[in-house]
Amino acid sequence: MTDTLRTPADRNLSPVFDEATAQEVDALIVGAGPVGMFAAFQLGLQGVQAHLCDSLPQMGGQCIALYADKPIYDIPGIALCTGRELAAKLQGQIQPFHPVFHGQSQVAQMLPHGDGRWRVQLQAIDGAPAQWLLGRIVLITAGVGAFVPKQLRLEGLEAWLGSQVFYHPVLGDAWLDQVLAEQAAPRIVVNGGDESAVEAVLAAAAHPALQAASLVLMHRRDQFNAPEAMLQNLAQLRASGRVQVVIGMPQTIDADSRLQGLGYVDAEGKDQQLACDQLWVYQGLSPKLGPLLDWNLALEKKQLQVATDTFQTSAAGIYAAGDIVSYPGKRKLILTGFYEATMAAMAAIEYLRGEKLLLEYTTTSKRLHARLGVSHPD
Amino acid sequence: MTDTLRTPADRNLSPVFDEATAQEVDALIVGAGPVGMFAAFQLGLQGVQAHLCDSLPQMGGQCIALYADKPIYDIPGIALCTGRELAAKLQGQIQPFHPVFHGQSQVAQMLPHGDGRWRVQLQAIDGAPAQWLLGRIVLITAGVGAFVPKQLRLEGLEAWLGSQVFYHPVLGDAWLDQVLAEQAAPRIVVNGGDESAVEAVLAAAAHPALQAASLVLMHRRDQFNAPEAMLQNLAQLRASGRVQVVIGMPQTIDADSRLQGLGYVDAEGKDQQLACDQLWVYQGLSPKLGPLLDWNLALEKKQLQVATDTFQTSAAGIYAAGDIVSYPGKRKLILTGFYEATMAAMAAIEYLRGEKLLLEYTTTSKRLHARLGVSHPD
Ligand SMILES: Cc1cc2nc3c(=O)[nH]c(=O)nc-3n(C[C@H](O)[C@H](O)[C@H](O)COP(=O)(O)OP(=O)(O)OC[C@H]3O[C@@H](n4cnc5c(N)ncnc54)[C@H](O)[C@@H]3O)c2cc1C
Ligand SMILES: Cc1cc2nc3c(=O)[nH]c(=O)nc-3n(C[C@H](O)[C@H](O)[C@H](O)COP(=O)(O)OP(=O)(O)OC[C@H]3O[C@@H](n4cnc5c(N)ncnc54)[C@H](O)[C@@H]3O)c2cc1C
Repeated sequence: MTDTLRTPADRNLSPVFDEATAQEVDALIVGAGPVGMFAAFQLGLQGVQAHLCDSLPQMGGQCIALYADKPIYDIPGIALCTGRELAAKLQGQIQPFHPVFHGQSQVAQMLPHGDGRWRVQLQAIDGAPAQWLLGRIVLITAGVGAFVPKQLRLEGLEAWLGSQVFYHPVLGDAWLDQVLAEQAAPRIVVNGGDESAVEAVLAAAAHPALQAASLVLMHRRDQFNAPEAMLQNLAQLRASGRVQVVIGMPQTIDADSRLQGLGYVDAEGKDQQLACDQLWVYQGLSPKLGPLLDWNLALEKKQLQVATDTFQTSAAGIYAAGDIVSYPGKRKLILTGFYEATMAAMAAIEYLRGEKLLLEYTTTSKRLHARLGVSHPD
Repeated sequence: MTDTLRTPADRNLSPVFDEATAQEVDALIVGAGPVGMFAAFQLGLQGVQAHLCDSLPQMGGQCIALYADKPIYDIPGIALCTGRELAAKLQGQIQPFHPVFHGQSQVAQMLPHGDGRWRVQLQAIDGAPAQWLLGRIVLITAGVGAFVPKQLRLEGLEAWLGSQVFYHPVLGDAWLDQVLAEQAAPRIVVNGGDESAVEAVLAAAAHPALQAASLVLMHRRDQFNAPEAMLQNLAQLRASGRVQVVIGMPQTIDADSRLQGLGYVDAEGKDQQLACDQLWVYQGLSPKLGPLLDWNLALEKKQLQVATDTFQTSAAGIYAAGDIVSYPGKRKLILTGFYEATMAAMAAIEYLRGEKLLLEYTTTSKRLHARLGVSHPD
């Protein structure tokens, strides 16, 4: 993430909409996949700063969540790049417009404000209270849905969410401070078997602030799906005793005024107990359309219907583009999403301004150059 | 130009259509601007080799003809490139599919063959006889029209076209052999005042095969529009006497069994004579929609009407994309053309095969990898 992509400074944390504390924004983009990112570019080019929301901690959508290191060959002018590289290129391209990124924030509700604007509720993935935005235009680029961590279904677990239980946490400093305030030398259980789980254990083992913590990696079998270098690193940490691997599946929690331990079934099917102050669950991400289906927008097979000349949905001021939309002939590709985002952004600008947009070329327009922060001699 | 972009080996030179000698092709693309180039990519990805025709000697359309060295900022994932760089990137990207490029060839006529195929007549810009292709599908990506050299209107000039008179010639070896066969030490007059004219004079002065030739640069005033380095080079050649600059405007030709000289009006308005064996005219290129308007396709304000789900024109088997098309909401940008080319190519493939195209990702499809000539471990 670059320093120009800021997270909102003062969050408004009321669960019920309150105009006084809602953050007013011109343009809100729901979903920061490749298509939402390019929508931010086109809005920026027209002088409108976008707010991008995503349940993921970083931008890139499917490209980073599903195939970060795999190749893409069909982006025009880019013979080859990986999913991660494409996301990085787009991030660089939108930087001049300083879009505001609300990461780990799922858009839960969207309601009309009554004056043409839209109330949009952001729910923090880490369980923090909801935040409201009030947007003049909304672009929905929600792809195949919000990438959210798969949940562990254990009775009573929710009570400890956000204090002792976390889904796919990113080991940032502020977050670790909070964890260590709860318990200076926590007994940490990382639950999962793929790259993200292994990565979290390795990061925790290497982190200076966690040297007093104990580390358990719990997975249903002694086989981990991660790059070879990571697996070797893990083997060393196991050999040295820094990380303990426990084979088992969590079944119950043991809690009083706080979470104390987990009950699990081991490889032989026997019930076992394990002490636990911090449970970090990395069971993978899966896309959930979820809330979007309740926003009273016209749908066709769970996709948003749009007009092909404006990419407006059935509601005025709400536009959509990318994998989430449906129209005659639609083909689900990144390029088609880029086009739709451009059409949607331009139509949205016309709606905002109440006048036709004059087509300008980035090659020759002094106005666009000023917004891009570049200058050219005549 | 890369070696894989071939010009047709044996041209069929009949002015009237003759099935026996017409070249049969699956897919013909009229116009090798950025949009036509990307159409060739999408066709190639689907296993169909494209033939691209353009009046220009190289691919790139407006990007190379109008703003080769100027910046473009709004191609998704490419924060900055020049027109020339974009054309080069696209050329690299289509190389795996070996499209056939018919350069300096204007598509003049397009007629139904009667069996669903289309007869397409290519007219060589250098005046060589016409060539016919017989195409199963045609994609028209003609932009703002065929870039053709502005003509010099002098009585009787046409008679020497292709032997002693050339418009915007590219100084290739085969072409120079032909020129020197006509006259070993020709008196060459380059007519024009912009970069292409200056470039041609500098190239001729530097060319080993033209050391015995005399070189005159004729322009209506002693001011040339070219980069500083070229102008300095020209000044040196003038000082050394290798190049003579004549200020004047051609008015008449002096010819018997061959072209011998030009009559021109000088800066003072006086009639003058100049010996000339070769007249190379560089008066700039201008786009001409010309023939396209006579192809019996539905037009709206001189643009092709297309259906937005298939990008088919009013004729079955003929698709269109890019600046040449019109539909509700159309915005004339390179990106929109890339999208339209993709939609058109995929719909054309479905038309060719008579079945729906299964959407495959370049990331994961072994079939697409084989066509791209890449291999990936599982
Ligand atoms: C394995 C694989 C390979 C592929 N290869 C190619 C290829 O080679 N070429 C190609 O063109 N396409 C390819 N695709 C398809 C391409 O990835 C998608 O078309 C593209 O990602 C769609 O972009 P998008 O921005 O519309 O949606 P997404 O990439 O799905 O992004 C949507 C974002 O919105 C967020 N979101 C959704 N709802 C909410 C909400 N309520 N609140 C907060 N955030 C939300 C999601 O978390 C997500 O980050 C491939 C797809 C896969 C799975
Ligand atoms: C100065 C300038 C700056 C621009 N900057 C930008 C920018 O920053 N971003 C952006 O998105 N767009 C920009 N554009 C617009 C962009 O260049 C066009 O949208 C784009 O070139 C359209 O591509 P195309 O392939 O449809 O047509 P073209 O680029 O016009 O190519 C069409 C080709 O077809 C050929 N042709 C036509 N008819 C025939 C025929 N009968 N026979 C043979 N050949 C034929 C022509 O010679 C030409 O090479 C700019 C345009 C200009 C003029």
